[in-house]
Amino acid sequence: MINLTYSEAIESVMDANMKTRLQKIQDDLYTKQGAGSDFLGWLDWPSSVSDDFITKIEETAKRIRKQADVLVVIGIGGSYLGAKAVLSSLEPYFPQEDKLEVLFAGHQVSGEYLKQLLAYLDGKDVVVNIISKSGKTTEPAIAFRFLSDYMEQRYGAGAAERIIVTTDAEKGALRQLAETKGYERFVVPDDVGGRYSVFTAVGLLPIAAAGHSIRQLLEGAKQAEAVYKDAGIESNTAIQYAAIRHQLYVQGYTTEVSAIFEPKLSFVQEWWKQLFGESEGKEGKGTFPASVVFTTDLHSMGQYIQDGKRNLFETFLLVNEANEDLEIFETPEDGDELNYIAGLSLQEFNHIAHKGTANAHLSGGVPQLSLTIERLDEHEIGHLLYFYMLSCAYSAYLLGINPFDQPGVEEYKNNIFKLLKKPGFE
Amino acid sequence: MINLTYSEAIESVMDANMKTRLQKIQDDLYTKQGAGSDFLGWLDWPSSVSDDFITKIEETAKRIRKQADVLVVIGIGGSYLGAKAVLSSLEPYFPQEDKLEVLFAGHQVSGEYLKQLLAYLDGKDVVVNIISKSGKTTEPAIAFRFLSDYMEQRYGAGAAERIIVTTDAEKGALRQLAETKGYERFVVPDDVGGRYSVFTAVGLLPIAAAGHSIRQLLEGAKQAEAVYKDAGIESNTAIQYAAIRHQLYVQGYTTEVSAIFEPKLSFVQEWWKQLFGESEGKEGKGTFPASVVFTTDLHSMGQYIQDGKRNLFETFLLVNEANEDLEIFETPEDGDELNYIAGLSLQEFNHIAHKGTANAHLSGGVPQLSLTIERLDEHEIGHLLYFYMLSCAYSAYLLGINPFDQPGVEEYKNNIFKLLKKPGFE
Repeated sequence: MINLTYSEAIESVMDANMKTRLQKIQDDLYTKQGAGSDFLGWLDWPSSVSDDFITKIEETAKRIRKQADVLVVIGIGGSYLGAKAVLSSLEPYFPQEDKLEVLFAGHQVSGEYLKQLLAYLDGKDVVVNIISKSGKTTEPAIAFRFLSDYMEQRYGAGAAERIIVTTDAEKGALRQLAETKGYERFVVPDDVGGRYSVFTAVGLLPIAAAGHSIRQLLEGAKQAEAVYKDAGIESNTAIQYAAIRHQLYVQGYTTEVSAIFEPKLSFVQEWWKQLFGESEGKEGKGTFPASVVFTTDLHSMGQYIQDGKRNLFETFLLVNEANEDLEIFETPEDGDELNYIAGLSLQEFNHIAHKGTANAHLSGGVPQLSLTIERLDEHEIGHLLYFYMLSCAYSAYLLGINPFDQPGVEEYKNNIFKLLKKPGFE
Repeated sequence: MINLTYSEAIESVMDANMKTRLQKIQDDLYTKQGAGSDFLGWLDWPSSVSDDFITKIEETAKRIRKQADVLVVIGIGGSYLGAKAVLSSLEPYFPQEDKLEVLFAGHQVSGEYLKQLLAYLDGKDVVVNIISKSGKTTEPAIAFRFLSDYMEQRYGAGAAERIIVTTDAEKGALRQLAETKGYERFVVPDDVGGRYSVFTAVGLLPIAAAGHSIRQLLEGAKQAEAVYKDAGIESNTAIQYAAIRHQLYVQGYTTEVSAIFEPKLSFVQEWWKQLFGESEGKEGKGTFPASVVFTTDLHSMGQYIQDGKRNLFETFLLVNEANEDLEIFETPEDGDELNYIAGLSLQEFNHIAHKGTANAHLSGGVPQLSLTIERLDEHEIGHLLYFYMLSCAYSAYLLGINPFDQPGVEEYKNNIFKLLKKPGFE
């Protein structure tokens, strides 16, 4: 569950007019009448996935763990960030023996990276999961040329059992290739956009392969689905987050700084940036999403947040309980003058650092929100990601923006294709 | 060397008034008469470091490589980001056998991280380098309590030969401790602030320990020092970058998005954010520094940059030559429709992606600059970091801001100490 608090400086946003607007958005959302409603497949996804679907992913995940030391996931945008966000939140900081390693490719175009990745794979057993709806997105397509070639040279006919394709159900180059070669297939649904796809096979297969409970992840999302569907507007945290950030935007606080004290959440921040940036950044509008990792960046961007241009607000994303912790102990010398906090755990220190930082930035004129989850586990992360997706839909609709398209992405693609002289784009 | 280009939409910023202001700043800078001029030790540092100083660091670095599999560097802010930025730019993407691994601690306060780090060190030989001017900065002090305890339990009396302290020359807790215990010492100079300290022992020792040429790094910085000191205002790239971003700020482009196509530069971006954010973010002023990694984030923040709120400009940081590369090859099926670019290298693709992206974002109303270095090596990185430091000083002075203090950082520290009931802060 998520606890939302906000600074007193943020006055109640729920006046009659705002309530009417939000009620209309809510009605349109659940009756699928808002802009972009062809892409609402994610809305009741957690409550409607079948047990067969989950079981099939779990079985493939189990097989991957048997077959491989390394799973290479090829994808970009929503086909990369969802799995990456969940894995970064749940995996340990340092590599573990005898645990499947999940690596990514096709999320950028570095020849050095790809070359060193291929060298790194030698002597390890490998499975590849390529995720691309069309099979033609340039970056993953390039990476897959190299990796499928590598797999065929290495495993011969056996490569077919080590390549798994997540793509369109019916059409496209990758769908065709999977059929020809006999690759196992999973589906990217038609009615779920990339940045809303973490609970589909796109996100679930890599997460399950790494050994995490996708049932718990989906349970958390399902809990969120129910809670925020049923709660009235005034007690609905997902709606409140949207309404508050909208009011701040209107008041000129046009940059939102997401701040964490748990470094493992940094890719949840990256996923959040795509979700909100790509959903809202249209027609010259939208809150600019930025992120900092505390306490690291208190010694970096902290100065700016405290005293810089006052067009930003701060949203803390907090974790209540640490999975592992250490306690500060006394030393005889006390040269560093820390004995006065002996007995304090590092997580307790972080909680106090949050309070002190919040007080300081508040006094510097930075409006603040806090979102707190209980701990870093599949259930809480599932709840959080659904919360963000739903809140984002409200937030974009408040701006009068379709949350589910990305018209600006075509612009640079067309420019690149023109420069590359792609047939049809010259 | 750095090549600076900018979009035509940015009109010439060098009117008579701007030239007069910049000339005054330049005069004050080199005659040390501007605000904060007690902290100009970095300005002629590259040309004035002694060979003895470099040799001492190189010898210690060599000894560390003999003694250790892992060097743990303890530091935060400028005592972390400088070394991290250079190492990330130069190290391979994947771990290499028989190469010293540099890990960081005390750059955040995660009990889980520290616990897993200590477990990871078992069975590996370790050297620790703690970097803290006062020895009392909370995060590194906490980490050093755990790590010095670990080292003493593990190596007994031998721990003293495996702990290296970079701290104040004369005073402070860590200086005292080093003397008592017999730790090797390096100096954090009095006249160089944390974010300007990468070319001092703070940055150089970890970089040298990892096997990179600090002579080349300093040579690059020395080249930059000479070039930008001697060049007149109109042909001075460091001054132009400052003047253009200042003009954009005045015009309402108050967020600068640093965009890279080489993922290894992402910690140079983090270092740049500290440098500019902490130097300029004062008195309600300053350009907000943000960063994206392309082509990854073209599928994320790209939409916002193309079509979102028009208060941002984009500065590409580009690398001309790749250190390693791959060439796209033909496939018989061409299902992914990439055969039309067979023969293109991935670096060539990135150059075209940059051009296409630049055209697209320009047509979306985003003013643009490009900074291009020749390749990722010590010399070019040294030049680049000095360029940024110098440019930052001009940029802050144009805002009427002291580039070398960080008054806002005290605010959250005092708040935390109050909550922790630190003696003297209750």
